[in-house]
Amino acid sequence: MERAVVTLSGGLDSATLLFWAVKRYDVSAITFDYGSKHNEKEQAAATELAGLTNVRHTFIKLPFINDLFKSDLLRSGGSIPEGHYEDESMRSTVVPFRNGIMLSIAVGLAESVGAGTVLYAAHAGDHAVYPDCRPDFLKAMSAAARAGTYMNVQIKDPFIGMHKKDIVLLGDELKVPFGVTYSCYKGGERHCGKCGTCVERREAFRLAGIADPTRYEV
Amino acid sequence: MERAVVTLSGGLDSATLLFWAVKRYDVSAITFDYGSKHNEKEQAAATELAGLTNVRHTFIKLPFINDLFKSDLLRSGGSIPEGHYEDESMRSTVVPFRNGIMLSIAVGLAESVGAGTVLYAAHAGDHAVYPDCRPDFLKAMSAAARAGTYMNVQIKDPFIGMHKKDIVLLGDELKVPFGVTYSCYKGGERHCGKCGTCVERREAFRLAGIADPTRYEV
Repeated sequence: MERAVVTLSGGLDSATLLFWAVKRYDVSAITFDYGSKHNEKEQAAATELAGLTNVRHTFIKLPFINDLFKSDLLRSGGSIPEGHYEDESMRSTVVPFRNGIMLSIAVGLAESVGAGTVLYAAHAGDHAVYPDCRPDFLKAMSAAARAGTYMNVQIKDPFIGMHKKDIVLLGDELKVPFGVTYSCYKGGERHCGKCGTCVERREAFRLAGIADPTRYEV
Repeated sequence: MERAVVTLSGGLDSATLLFWAVKRYDVSAITFDYGSKHNEKEQAAATELAGLTNVRHTFIKLPFINDLFKSDLLRSGGSIPEGHYEDESMRSTVVPFRNGIMLSIAVGLAESVGAGTVLYAAHAGDHAVYPDCRPDFLKAMSAAARAGTYMNVQIKDPFIGMHKKDIVLLGDELKVPFGVTYSCYKGGERHCGKCGTCVERREAFRLAGIADPTRYEV
């Protein structure tokens, strides 16, 4: 089986990607701690998901992001805005070029362990606010990975044309334990239900017609 | 003056880039410790060069590279090969996608501090062995940076068509203190004179007809 590195945050999208990938590749998962308010909860989810799928799992700490970069998603930033995920107000939660940094490290790790593919769970709903989730960015980043490695590592984004509702439907088919996954940007014990990513998560289950196992505050 | 982030290793090429850049931009320099055998000597050089040009200077540690990646350039790798810089044997010193990782972080920092440009000192002599120094890689990486940031950050490689001899000539014009810069992959007190980067450095001064202030072991 061909080897692949899956970038696994512990959220709903990357969890579904992991369950999709293990049917197709010999998977190594990689999870980053870059100092976001919800990294701790995400990491617990990622650890559980990696255990359930029995994949190798690597954690990488990037403390300089919280120390030097500007974003309300970070512990060093302001409070998380409430509203819809695609609202302009969510722009304050962008961590500059975060996905470029995470994908570059995943590409370097892929070449080190002999994996020719990096898998990434960007989807259509990410495009409005996050420039480093858009198809143009991912196309260029994959071209850089191919040109910049001996193995011509490819970055693949199988969900790039899907809406979150479609990911919930796919995850349901793949028996992803959605209750294990964590999305809330506030990083609390329960999902807040009011930040952009909670609103988006809840809406996706509703549109998909799938029961939402998430425990929300509101 | 427009702001730019300069990736500064402390070697001859990036030192010359720094002296070139301060005439054109309001510069922040960024230096990485990724666990190479010569990072300590490079960092001392980078600190001195940043002080001489009076620029802001940020150090970023990437310990996961030495822990997880495979390369003889790293402290965790085998011994440094001797020979010419463009020899096939130098391939063991490639750190997988190192420049993709460093440039991505520089792009994220650039967007965080309001700099629209990242400057990088890849040159024509790097292309033979290092895939992440080639024009195709840099073109794709710059496209990814533009697409993946709100500021449309550009990666510029002003030396990409130059040979190291030409960089020595330019550095001489710009009064770069070459004796401060450090290149040797072995990381010893003096330059070894036998590893690929020492051979290349010495040859560049000879071809340029400029006195070489470097103290070599051999």
